[in-house]
Amino acid sequence: MFGISSLGTVSVEEIGSTIRTPKLFQLYFHKDRGLTNSMIERCIAANFDVLALTVDTITGGNRERDLRTGFTSPPRLTLRSLLSFALHPRWAVNYFSHEKFELPQLKDHVKEGSNVSVSVSDYFSTMLDQSMNWQDAESVRKKWGKQFCLKGIMSVADAKRAVEIGATAIMVSNHGGRQLDGSRSPFDQLAEIVDAVGDKIDVICDGGIARGTHVLKALSVGAKACSGGRFYLYALAAAGQAGVERALKNLYAEIERDMKLMGCRSVDQLSRDNLRFR
Amino acid sequence: MFGISSLGTVSVEEIGSTIRTPKLFQLYFHKDRGLTNSMIERCIAANFDVLALTVDTITGGNRERDLRTGFTSPPRLTLRSLLSFALHPRWAVNYFSHEKFELPQLKDHVKEGSNVSVSVSDYFSTMLDQSMNWQDAESVRKKWGKQFCLKGIMSVADAKRAVEIGATAIMVSNHGGRQLDGSRSPFDQLAEIVDAVGDKIDVICDGGIARGTHVLKALSVGAKACSGGRFYLYALAAAGQAGVERALKNLYAEIERDMKLMGCRSVDQLSRDNLRFR
Amino acid sequence: MFGISSLGTVSVEEIGSTIRTPKLFQLYFHKDRGLTNSMIERCIAANFDVLALTVDTITGGNRERDLRTGFTSPPRLTLRSLLSFALHPRWAVNYFSHEKFELPQLKDHVKEGSNVSVSVSDYFSTMLDQSMNWQDAESVRKKWGKQFCLKGIMSVADAKRAVEIGATAIMVSNHGGRQLDGSRSPFDQLAEIVDAVGDKIDVICDGGIARGTHVLKALSVGAKACSGGRFYLYALAAAGQAGVERALKNLYAEIERDMKLMGCRSVDQLSRDNLRFR
Amino acid sequence: MFGISSLGTVSVEEIGSTIRTPKLFQLYFHKDRGLTNSMIERCIAANFDVLALTVDTITGGNRERDLRTGFTSPPRLTLRSLLSFALHPRWAVNYFSHEKFELPQLKDHVKEGSNVSVSVSDYFSTMLDQSMNWQDAESVRKKWGKQFCLKGIMSVADAKRAVEIGATAIMVSNHGGRQLDGSRSPFDQLAEIVDAVGDKIDVICDGGIARGTHVLKALSVGAKACSGGRFYLYALAAAGQAGVERALKNLYAEIERDMKLMGCRSVDQLSRDNLRFR
Repeated sequence: MFGISSLGTVSVEEIGSTIRTPKLFQLYFHKDRGLTNSMIERCIAANFDVLALTVDTITGGNRERDLRTGFTSPPRLTLRSLLSFALHPRWAVNYFSHEKFELPQLKDHVKEGSNVSVSVSDYFSTMLDQSMNWQDAESVRKKWGKQFCLKGIMSVADAKRAVEIGATAIMVSNHGGRQLDGSRSPFDQLAEIVDAVGDKIDVICDGGIARGTHVLKALSVGAKACSGGRFYLYALAAAGQAGVERALKNLYAEIERDMKLMGCRSVDQLSRDNLRFR
Repeated sequence: MFGISSLGTVSVEEIGSTIRTPKLFQLYFHKDRGLTNSMIERCIAANFDVLALTVDTITGGNRERDLRTGFTSPPRLTLRSLLSFALHPRWAVNYFSHEKFELPQLKDHVKEGSNVSVSVSDYFSTMLDQSMNWQDAESVRKKWGKQFCLKGIMSVADAKRAVEIGATAIMVSNHGGRQLDGSRSPFDQLAEIVDAVGDKIDVICDGGIARGTHVLKALSVGAKACSGGRFYLYALAAAGQAGVERALKNLYAEIERDMKLMGCRSVDQLSRDNLRFR
Repeated sequence: MFGISSLGTVSVEEIGSTIRTPKLFQLYFHKDRGLTNSMIERCIAANFDVLALTVDTITGGNRERDLRTGFTSPPRLTLRSLLSFALHPRWAVNYFSHEKFELPQLKDHVKEGSNVSVSVSDYFSTMLDQSMNWQDAESVRKKWGKQFCLKGIMSVADAKRAVEIGATAIMVSNHGGRQLDGSRSPFDQLAEIVDAVGDKIDVICDGGIARGTHVLKALSVGAKACSGGRFYLYALAAAGQAGVERALKNLYAEIERDMKLMGCRSVDQLSRDNLRFR
Repeated sequence: MFGISSLGTVSVEEIGSTIRTPKLFQLYFHKDRGLTNSMIERCIAANFDVLALTVDTITGGNRERDLRTGFTSPPRLTLRSLLSFALHPRWAVNYFSHEKFELPQLKDHVKEGSNVSVSVSDYFSTMLDQSMNWQDAESVRKKWGKQFCLKGIMSVADAKRAVEIGATAIMVSNHGGRQLDGSRSPFDQLAEIVDAVGDKIDVICDGGIARGTHVLKALSVGAKACSGGRFYLYALAAAGQAGVERALKNLYAEIERDMKLMGCRSVDQLSRDNLRFR
């Protein structure tokens, strides 16, 4: 399934018209309710299948690496980034000859959606609605009406609450470990959450997936699926579209091969008997 | 809350007249009872709020780093320190143009309080009263009469005893790990002590606090507060007053941000459910 | 006991005529049933004692090191291997003056058995029968009729199944850790398998054996014997036949010495009381 | 208490006449019963207090470092040791101007006791009696008649047997980790042995003691005393007699200081409550 973020650089309309596989939109809940609602409506119009409401970023995390490097989306020119451009000429040529990055989900509503760079941390802190609560999540679900996922659940209590407001799935996720330092890995939290709500809702393990066996371990614990960002982003950064296709093909081959080696013909045969913890 | 040690280089009177926030005095129990009593009286006069009797230093620890570097307070000139001055000219200029360090809590009573340097190890071994016992601690509490804390409790048995002599708080502390090698970290001892006396006395986690999540972990275990020395001292050494203000501001921001990300509105909502040990 | 693989470079006939000690043939189950059957028949004719059917390689593992180095059997000339030859002249002279490597168990049946190099990964994937099932294993046992071992069992369920189809032994093995990444070490799986079937079948610990104490630990858990490949292969690579003889002599001496130091006169006295896990 | 080995370079008679503190003789059980008996008799005559029969060296361990360096006692001249002499001229002058090393406990009985060097491994393997059994140990105890210790007990079963043959103490020891690779540290085995026989026999923790807290930890588990070799040998190698005196003084000071910091006035107050394992 293909996912696109509220901060994505391609519009939901373009994706809706070019992608035939199931589509997921990762919604950030903005102070500007008009913006939030417009995103939901555009996703409905573009025939998206799943809405994943991000619930772990009501404020930006203390992303110390970003503070150090000054990460913004799109990139901002600094002395340091100029130096980096000079040292990576092919990347720089590619970057400057490329059409300008935009944040098309945001651009009609806010300055930050224009090509003026803003740090992700500032974006979260200034534009997102820190008062978002369970009622808000439920009203988004009702407005949306289709498969509805909460992204960023890490506790049994919140997983149960997700069931109560009618979510059809949760992503067990710590936002790539970039929001709350010291938070556990999603995989480590998976078992207790699956035990509590696994029979009522789809539990998705988000984060840390880099190999076929990682997927098989998560499914063995009881996840219904896995999701990830770095997995395809590293491949994208290294080799563009070809890199992503290669990474996905490798992952598929690994899952198939590893299941054969585990003596499994179907994911139904994956269970905690396959795992030993230490 | 601001704390000042018996070995502090600013007098309790000056602090009493300049600091408006709650004030804690860290008392060392001296062989010279006149000195000990005079400190208590000066703290009462200077309107201090809390007296913290240090109970983990009846003898100096085997501070091997200090033995190697020859640490004294104030610093003593050696060939090595002269070299260090030469290599850090700005620091040296600052040091020599600064008014002389004094130990104003001690200077009217003992040679070691004058500007003659003494190693911290020798100070503990020669000036402090190794025979200090629970009756002494109780008599200090009575003389003081206000909030009374024992600093350096590491066992359930001693925590219970602290309750019996009328202490209103204990600091679970191993004196920065510099007294007894192989002692556990305060955080690791916290749970059993909170379980034993947490409902009768304020348990404070002292040591190892460097980030907001460290504070939140200690509070989640059941500490009422945290305290620390290196946290502000490193900032002080790096950037003076501005550094300390920056460090405190960062810590405050981290605690606030992390609580939002944990979905907590109040410290009352922090509990051991937030923690997983391994 | 001496073991030879389906991929061995010496024929079972030659081994049968030169080796007097017990002989084991490691059978790979090929799509070409004629080839599989011919191997069994040749082993019977050559008076082999044990047939070990490999059950952990119905597909090649994701051997990333082999992918990187381009490992084939026999070695294939590449620019890189040429460079390596140039840097190791003695090895190269020895290699090129040696008679050509062959895969005599395969050569009459398939192209891959000729001197045309094929990667082990491709071999497993293209020539072995991925549909091999428990009935196939049982029919091999019946055709063979003597001591019959399944090599590559890692779970209690499969160990029980091995008993049911009449195997007389199992090798607890993960194929040297090269098939399924994240698989446990055989030693770690040993106890539960011994507990389940140790009284019905010979359990052999395969893999990781490098010292006498490794053997004694496995026997203490309940293995009947140990087997290994790298143990003699590293010695072979380093010093040829003399190296292997030295390694075996060392291993024998270590087992004898270590049993004396453990106060044991017989392997019957080895038990889990000798072991502490952490 | 001072201990001297069967392989010591000073005679029991000289020690008996110069050392006033309690004296222990570490007996190795030789094939030559005359030698073994003569050692016992000489110890009685020299008024030794304790006989410690070494029971963990009926054969030499696989001391791989010794195999590499060619360790013998006394040292043997090799090209390598000559080079080492040249690089450490002061040590070499001292060595060659010193009277010759002898093994006075052995010299009247065997070639190996003369100044001809022999590797410790060969000594153990050729001269010691591998058939030594519990009856032999009991007969040594009877011949000796005073405090009798078995050195090298590592299991509860052997500790109980030591009680049965009338030993008054055991040293929990793995001979410095040089005999059986993979053996546990004595400290780790201490608790179960103390639990089994601690009320019937003195349990001594031998090995790994380098600091005061190590002694206090062993006593807290239930050891009656600690012993060690490397502790004084490293100091001896570094600074001769003065080094050993300094090391012992440091150890004494550490034990005293650490007990103060633990709030203990007597070793009777040391208990497992002081310890947390992880």
